[in-house]
Amino acid sequence: MRDVVVIGVGMNKWGELWEKSIRDIYVEAALAAIGDAGVDHLDSMIIGCMSGGLFVGQEHLGSLMADYLGQKNLAASRVESACASGGLAFKMAYLEVASGFSDIVMASGVEKMTDVSGDGATFALATAADQEYEVFHGATFPGLYALMATAHMHKHATTREMLSAVAVKNHNNGSMNPYAQYPFKTTIDEVSNSVMVASPLRILDCSPITDGAAAVILTTVDIAKKLGKPIIKIIGSGHATDTIALHSRADLTTLKATTVAAQKAFKMANKTIKDINFAEVHDCFTIAEIIVTESLGIFPAGKGGEAVLKGETGLEGSFPINTSGGLKSKGHPVGATGVAQIIEVVKQLRGTAENGRQLKRQPKIGMAQNMGGSGGSTLVHILEVA
Amino acid sequence: MRDVVVIGVGMNKWGELWEKSIRDIYVEAALAAIGDAGVDHLDSMIIGCMSGGLFVGQEHLGSLMADYLGQKNLAASRVESACASGGLAFKMAYLEVASGFSDIVMASGVEKMTDVSGDGATFALATAADQEYEVFHGATFPGLYALMATAHMHKHATTREMLSAVAVKNHNNGSMNPYAQYPFKTTIDEVSNSVMVASPLRILDCSPITDGAAAVILTTVDIAKKLGKPIIKIIGSGHATDTIALHSRADLTTLKATTVAAQKAFKMANKTIKDINFAEVHDCFTIAEIIVTESLGIFPAGKGGEAVLKGETGLEGSFPINTSGGLKSKGHPVGATGVAQIIEVVKQLRGTAENGRQLKRQPKIGMAQNMGGSGGSTLVHILEVA
Repeated sequence: MRDVVVIGVGMNKWGELWEKSIRDIYVEAALAAIGDAGVDHLDSMIIGCMSGGLFVGQEHLGSLMADYLGQKNLAASRVESACASGGLAFKMAYLEVASGFSDIVMASGVEKMTDVSGDGATFALATAADQEYEVFHGATFPGLYALMATAHMHKHATTREMLSAVAVKNHNNGSMNPYAQYPFKTTIDEVSNSVMVASPLRILDCSPITDGAAAVILTTVDIAKKLGKPIIKIIGSGHATDTIALHSRADLTTLKATTVAAQKAFKMANKTIKDINFAEVHDCFTIAEIIVTESLGIFPAGKGGEAVLKGETGLEGSFPINTSGGLKSKGHPVGATGVAQIIEVVKQLRGTAENGRQLKRQPKIGMAQNMGGSGGSTLVHILEVA
Repeated sequence: MRDVVVIGVGMNKWGELWEKSIRDIYVEAALAAIGDAGVDHLDSMIIGCMSGGLFVGQEHLGSLMADYLGQKNLAASRVESACASGGLAFKMAYLEVASGFSDIVMASGVEKMTDVSGDGATFALATAADQEYEVFHGATFPGLYALMATAHMHKHATTREMLSAVAVKNHNNGSMNPYAQYPFKTTIDEVSNSVMVASPLRILDCSPITDGAAAVILTTVDIAKKLGKPIIKIIGSGHATDTIALHSRADLTTLKATTVAAQKAFKMANKTIKDINFAEVHDCFTIAEIIVTESLGIFPAGKGGEAVLKGETGLEGSFPINTSGGLKSKGHPVGATGVAQIIEVVKQLRGTAENGRQLKRQPKIGMAQNMGGSGGSTLVHILEVA
């Protein structure tokens, strides 16, 4: 396999983008990434999107987006793995360049989630769970993650305060991210007393409904050098699934797909978690970040919550997590999230994260963990700057 | 890139499978392919599905299907390009093995289309067209292809009889396919006098709504040899898009994405259309088969209809098309169609097509052309038996 590097990143300011359609949002992010990379063409583009069908009545995004981006007759594909669709797009783009089939590929993601009315967004998101055995009986994602939170609190004495600390940290980081949907800061008290959604999860434990897109350009080392770009190489790519339904799992307090995907990525990169300087992880709910950091091996099982409280995952901590603000503050347009994680990893490795959230000790190796459903699928990528 | 071969194929009998859910249908086809290949594990699986969300309220098929197939923690992905989703799954699986990232990958496709009520299926399918500029104004796929048919008849004097001849040929072939949804034979008169759907297209010009799945196993030449399998190599893979909306195209009587995808595949294979012995093409409507054979260069522009009437695309013709029965007779579970085309190509190259539809002159090189929407995306693959 050829070495593959990321040479361009782009996204738009995420939020409730009422005045823009899914194609406008996508094209904005794609043009930003193409501009940042400085390439004059693409060989292929891959789009992560969870449910264009249910959110906006539009599938076939490969054809639509190549068309609206003015990329006449380009090979363009859409991939989906629920909220890990962006991570999957990145993997597929990586393979296409690594194989030698294409030289310049755009990995991208988009979701327009605010155009549905009533409980349309909740239903669309629930299609990431087991339709016949979970959704049919009324399960929604806040409910499923609430079960995981309850189990974790019971088994590991994880506290309300620890959950809140995740939100406080991520909103603090997000307050420095010009692309974040909710760049406000918050406090432990505010989070702990916010409106209950599904006990024990409150509104400030939950990532929001978001419209947004993100794109990155992948190419070979040779082309990156010709373009004078820093060599930020993809050194590990891991992908795994778990049972789609929570009730089929032996343990609700850990995420097996995350552990397996990370092991694959570490093996490929010939690294361990100790070699990683920072990570973007999938904090769709505060409890998710805690369980993910444990499943990745950053902290021992049951110690993830304590680590957040102690500031170990903060900007100045031993293992910074979600310097971008995470899904919590940056927003969570489900198909775009995995790609935006890569953007933050690239910015930190370039040393160009905005507004004071750049890590003080310049990192060399970063990781992105993106998951779908209640952890039914996970993509882990490791990037290293030369 | 490494050479990649197809060593196993499997599908179920397609139709209105009321008693089976999408997961049952998928697992049946996947197990058949795994059994045919004789492999003891998979490294990855890729699933083409157009709209699990709109047809059955289920996205995240990667997680679901790996789970129900008993493939614990397997890397499993879903890809979509409307009715070309199966072809896209095949391309992605090809790249994964060609790159050296994985050794044994299953390319598969599934759609459960009959569980929606009222005009649900028509709406779901219409999400392959331009939602804002076509669907919003009432366009459906029979209507869009009717526009193409009218233009083709006007420009090239293509006749009602020529359209009917496509259906007659494909149903004749399909009558020998034990997996076909509609294995009945028909006549020019029956087709020409069947119920009008969207003038000039009648019900027997249209492919049906179908539940079904299909799967093929891809691997390296070394593994294929160890397993004692015939070496059926993927020698060409082409992928292109066109404008999603018909009104943006300069000419409705040709399919640009098909032409460009074929050119890419020919270039990679170092072949021309004259080297190809037979093809499975995307006959979602009778007119589609005629335009596709012209766009592929099998027949000159405007001569596709005449060629069918003359029997040139029949089992004993100069260039057999859709020996499987095509989408018309075999059925069209949209996500599975592109994979089933590969199955027929492999069977013909193996010399094992059932019930007398095996081509008399044993073919060496076959092609599959799978398209999405009104030709907004197309995948072309060329396979050669050693």
